[in-house]
Amino acid sequence: DPNLKVFSLNSNRDLAQEIASVIGVELGKCSVQRFSDGEIQINIEESIRGCDVYVIQSTSSPVNEHLMELLIMIDALKRASAKTINIVMPYYGYARQDRKARAREPITAKLAANLLETAGATRVITLDLHAPQIQGFFDIPIDHLMGVPILSEYFKKKAMDGDVVIVSPDHGGVTRARKMAERLKAPIAIIDKRRPKPNVAEVMNIVGNIDGKVAILIDDIIDTAGTITLAANALIENGASEVYACCTHPVLSGPAIERIQNSNIKELVVTNSIALPEEKKIDKIVELSVAPLIGEAIIRVHEEESVSTLFD
Amino acid sequence: DPNLKVFSLNSNRDLAQEIASVIGVELGKCSVQRFSDGEIQINIEESIRGCDVYVIQSTSSPVNEHLMELLIMIDALKRASAKTINIVMPYYGYARQDRKARAREPITAKLAANLLETAGATRVITLDLHAPQIQGFFDIPIDHLMGVPILSEYFKKKAMDGDVVIVSPDHGGVTRARKMAERLKAPIAIIDKRRPKPNVAEVMNIVGNIDGKVAILIDDIIDTAGTITLAANALIENGASEVYACCTHPVLSGPAIERIQNSNIKELVVTNSIALPEEKKIDKIVELSVAPLIGEAIIRVHEEESVSTLFD
Ligand SMILES: Nc1ncnc2c1ncn2[C@@H]1O[C@H](COP(=O)(O)O)[C@@H](O)[C@H]1O
Ligand SMILES: Nc1ncnc2c1ncn2[C@@H]1O[C@H](COP(=O)(O)O)[C@@H](O)[C@H]1O
Repeated sequence: DPNLKVFSLNSNRDLAQEIASVIGVELGKCSVQRFSDGEIQINIEESIRGCDVYVIQSTSSPVNEHLMELLIMIDALKRASAKTINIVMPYYGYARQDRKARAREPITAKLAANLLETAGATRVITLDLHAPQIQGFFDIPIDHLMGVPILSEYFKKKAMDGDVVIVSPDHGGVTRARKMAERLKAPIAIIDKRRPKPNVAEVMNIVGNIDGKVAILIDDIIDTAGTITLAANALIENGASEVYACCTHPVLSGPAIERIQNSNIKELVVTNSIALPEEKKIDKIVELSVAPLIGEAIIRVHEEESVSTLFD
Repeated sequence: DPNLKVFSLNSNRDLAQEIASVIGVELGKCSVQRFSDGEIQINIEESIRGCDVYVIQSTSSPVNEHLMELLIMIDALKRASAKTINIVMPYYGYARQDRKARAREPITAKLAANLLETAGATRVITLDLHAPQIQGFFDIPIDHLMGVPILSEYFKKKAMDGDVVIVSPDHGGVTRARKMAERLKAPIAIIDKRRPKPNVAEVMNIVGNIDGKVAILIDDIIDTAGTITLAANALIENGASEVYACCTHPVLSGPAIERIQNSNIKELVVTNSIALPEEKKIDKIVELSVAPLIGEAIIRVHEEESVSTLFD
């Protein structure tokens, strides 16, 4: 369909290329550069009048650069008479700022939603929002894809050295762990962090049986990797035979790579929702592609079919 | 008035401090930092419920960081029940992207206006917009201050070595040059760049009499300093005795400092609408403060008086 156009900005060019191949189109011609003073300069180099345009961009680090690229691109597309402007954000930055945890905090996840709509987005396709409530921050349609099936499939195919248990590193992630456990027909366990008294180190209790088992930790985001590597230690200390970890969004900032390298984690399985720079591609990290999932979602959205069956 | 609060973000802390002194208030307590992954973290550390809040922030380089800090701060202030949210942008970034010069270009200056309003700004105070039409991009009140009186005052007080002529480096700046010329009771001249044939170097003609005179070049923005240093050369070659230059907004990106250092320009006079980092503070550059102007404008806005008489 010549009316379907896919454009890539700067966050995930390899993924965008892969998605275009899945759909069977060429990426749209567009340059995204900087003027001498750092202002973003976007040139869309082909007509998109009357087209359904899909823009691939994660608001991963540098998040403010990537978000502004996206907003400016949406503005340019709108003024160039695109019929629909569909934003594909494999990783939705600022998702952890989704509520006022303290007085006078911003809710930047909602701000970002408002900015995208103001710029002119007509639909959002995203993956594993940190809180599914963020869907409600939008007044335009949003398709919320899941990383769990992709991560589960990997472990299903891998020969594991013993019985498997899926472990959530905190209370917040239990639903996600359960979904994976169902797919792998495995039990779950939960790491229950408690601070016995103020100013005393947290104690990690493990709820569930992990003794002699292969533990798979699952989270949505791994950022500085503090939680996940401490969890891996606790699992080994409490009798797990091996620890794997997986997440959808490898933010991996600050000390993350060093911590993972030096941890008990045997392998960390992630998706390419966030592109890993070369220096973060260590042997322990396995990258799975979300291109087939996102490509299929774009085809279905374009053909006005439901994307919900993508999770069966 | 305890209901008047002034906050600074990261672009111009020294200027903000000076503005607060002019008004006679302390700067509001607020930390603007980064999470490990580069996301902006803002904590407003005092109540602002029911207050008229003024936020000082230029969207100078790094423009996307500074703009996002501003948008997130506005979001936090709105949710913390500020009565009015007044944005003081001494320098309005993206102002040169104010029209579609070619097909499929964004109009980022308009986008930025929309984003500020969406976040919750209720008024904008700014200085020397690249195009005054940008005022019309806002649906909220905007006060547009002028740098010419400050720059003119400096040259009025300076003992100049001969008759003065005010020079616009291009056609677009003639109105600005005329305003300065009126204040200094001096004539004007214009640099008229023409390309005789395609792929032939531009020729600089000078319209007006500069022979034996002290030329003062004036522009709103000096970015890479290519235009202004070539103009200075042309003026000296055509008989000017000395060349000064001035501008409101010292963007000074890329080769700017080196070009100015090596140029015929005797002195470059700028304002602190954009904070100069240490490495750009060379002897040739004189910085004038806009704090008295902006402080006075804030007092008048707060007392619901007109700011237009500030230019008399
Ligand atoms: N980029 C970030 N890095 C670390 N913490 C964050 C970030 N953004 C928000 N937060 C904080 O993380 C908390 C929310 O995380 P969670 O409890 O996992 O939903 C809030 O207290 C936020 O202030
Ligand atoms: N940050 C920037 N640096 C250099 N040129 C820019 C910048 N932003 C916009 N422009 C271009 O500058 C032109 C407008 O400048 P002017 O003719 O001086 O109003 C347009 O063609 C823009 O594409």
